[in-house]
Amino acid sequence: MSNMYDSAYELQNSIRESDDFQALKEAFEKVMADPSSKQMFDNFRDTQLALQEKQMQGQDITEEEVEKARNVVELVQQHPDISNLMEKEQRLNTAINDLSQIITKPLEELYGTPEK
Amino acid sequence: MSNMYDSAYELQNSIRESDDFQALKEAFEKVMADPSSKQMFDNFRDTQLALQEKQMQGQDITEEEVEKARNVVELVQQHPDISNLMEKEQRLNTAINDLSQIITKPLEELYGTPEK
Repeated sequence: MSNMYDSAYELQNSIRESDDFQALKEAFEKVMADPSSKQMFDNFRDTQLALQEKQMQGQDITEEEVEKARNVVELVQQHPDISNLMEKEQRLNTAINDLSQIITKPLEELYGTPEK
Repeated sequence: MSNMYDSAYELQNSIRESDDFQALKEAFEKVMADPSSKQMFDNFRDTQLALQEKQMQGQDITEEEVEKARNVVELVQQHPDISNLMEKEQRLNTAINDLSQIITKPLEELYGTPEK
């Protein structure tokens, strides 16, 4: 039986060579290669991160900020390369969540005993 | 190159057969086998979960609740089987965090480009 860390590096390689990751990489590089797409994407990402940070710190988010975020999302969704990138991100995230559930199954089995 | 899902199942097996997981399982089963230890552990876990839930919902935690939680922690720490279980949990959690960083490295490499 192989070591946990060896298995994790093997999974890292499988992810890196997967179609999902390669498609994400291609989509990301396409957006980064165009200065105006890159700027729009960076702006979108910064807006999302700033809102997430406020939310995590329990700060109130103003009506104006919600409106601004909505506008930025609408803008990027209309940009074919960025919306393609977001779709590829979504797809890989879903896969990684699935992988994560597979990996932590032994813990779930241990703690999820019906006797509680 | 193997499929992501095959690699994840392999990692699941490696975790299940690891010394860290086997030690946790043994410690958990020892606590569960003794009704008074089990009750103390369940009580500890319920207190922790209730506090976490309140925190996540942004509710205030009273001085009294903090005090109660502290007492429960002190109690379980004095219980050799439960403190052993908590130590084994901590150890496996640390390992799983390390594994998780290994696995998500391709994403970090992709997004962590220095050109931003």
